[in-house]
Amino acid sequence: MAGGSTQWQGRSVISKVVSLLDAFGPSTPELSLSDLARITGLPVSTTYRLAAELVEWGGLERADGAGYRIGMRLWELGTLAPRAGTLRTVALPFMQDLYEATRENVHLAVRDGIEALYVETIAGRGSVRTRSRRGGRLPLHATGVGKVLLAHAPPDVLHAVLDAGLHRYTPHTISTPGHLRRALADVRRTGIAYAREEMSGGSLSVAAPVTAADGVVVAALAVVRRSGRVDLRRLAPAVRTAALSASRALQERAGWAPAPSRTGEATIHSH
Amino acid sequence: MAGGSTQWQGRSVISKVVSLLDAFGPSTPELSLSDLARITGLPVSTTYRLAAELVEWGGLERADGAGYRIGMRLWELGTLAPRAGTLRTVALPFMQDLYEATRENVHLAVRDGIEALYVETIAGRGSVRTRSRRGGRLPLHATGVGKVLLAHAPPDVLHAVLDAGLHRYTPHTISTPGHLRRALADVRRTGIAYAREEMSGGSLSVAAPVTAADGVVVAALAVVRRSGRVDLRRLAPAVRTAALSASRALQERAGWAPAPSRTGEATIHSH
Repeated sequence: MAGGSTQWQGRSVISKVVSLLDAFGPSTPELSLSDLARITGLPVSTTYRLAAELVEWGGLERADGAGYRIGMRLWELGTLAPRAGTLRTVALPFMQDLYEATRENVHLAVRDGIEALYVETIAGRGSVRTRSRRGGRLPLHATGVGKVLLAHAPPDVLHAVLDAGLHRYTPHTISTPGHLRRALADVRRTGIAYAREEMSGGSLSVAAPVTAADGVVVAALAVVRRSGRVDLRRLAPAVRTAALSASRALQERAGWAPAPSRTGEATIHSH
Repeated sequence: MAGGSTQWQGRSVISKVVSLLDAFGPSTPELSLSDLARITGLPVSTTYRLAAELVEWGGLERADGAGYRIGMRLWELGTLAPRAGTLRTVALPFMQDLYEATRENVHLAVRDGIEALYVETIAGRGSVRTRSRRGGRLPLHATGVGKVLLAHAPPDVLHAVLDAGLHRYTPHTISTPGHLRRALADVRRTGIAYAREEMSGGSLSVAAPVTAADGVVVAALAVVRRSGRVDLRRLAPAVRTAALSASRALQERAGWAPAPSRTGEATIHSH
């Protein structure tokens, strides 16, 4: 831990707190004190003191046994994030309608840096299992919602996506810049994005943009279903209808402001 | 601001960060720099520096204009809270079923200190408008979910609730300790809680407990509908069924641990 101590010389307390919180993730929802010290590189004594202060506040909770986990106070603050909490509250009734009409998975995502961040998911009971979970991230170039968000993002976002490389998740993933540019132009022209087994085999997606009052695309709504002998285009009107309804409801809601433009992976967790 | 500066002498940086985040709430989702300095009592220069660090991390975001708001990174961390995110993910399909069967409001709440904290709400389109919002808090003694949570809480929670006083929201609110104790005994005996215009006029609630593997009540599930000529007891089997299904799904989910026992208002936001 001495090395960790040295490494943190001169770093601000806030950056230590942030590194402590950032240690938690979907695969590490509960961490012991020694896990936390190891992941952050902080001395155990510092880790213990900071964690204790966060527990007192409610941002962390003690789990059964000796572990720590994210606490209710952080969850509660998170519900106040306009780009997730408010958006989701406004969009959910229309997502429910879309679910009732299709009985398939319904997803709502925003762009954060060069990834799609899922702010709400309704899982269709009999539908295909997807890799998207609420609070989860998936790449922009390989998902329906991602292509909608990328098609309407500033040009530097596309550059950052191309710089990061178009990872090929399946044989159907778009993996060349030219192909991606043409696909995004189609999305802008038609107002709809399709993804056909591009993220994982066996699932198809139809996505449409959700726009704020100034016409800025702030989110994407999608239906994701099992692949098979189905004309995906038949789902498009339902998805577009729900996305337009959600957009209108969002625009009618006073005080809702669209996302600040953030680009590039470097700005996602820069600390 | 000089007074604020003096007031914060000797306080830890983490407590300043926490006070900055705590300034945000349902009625103050967006705050200017001067709002933040005024609410926290911190000097403007300190407020600016801390806010800038939080923006760089993603815990706060700059809004259009000059304001700050809760950022996506805090929302994302919040989804990892087992008592909200995991619970809600597991319970949502059964809440949807309950909504489809009743077409009324469906609420899921946990206890935090001496309040009910709403972790998920489905709003029935034609149903009564309620005062519960996701991330919102309501008193334990005046709501259906609250009575379920209070009935199964450690005795010191009831003492803390009584010490805080049984505020009378409507003429039907339970406002004497004896009446409340009898009502809670009924809830434990029958496995169901009713609230009849006890929080706000015009709405009725039927609530049932959600239990973890060890039989500990970790949440309450409720249907809230418009009052009128309706036998509320007819809704009870549907609510209990959904709550039992959610409990079973929760118990089947490995690694899910119930809430640490927290009691008394003093521990809610003690910093």
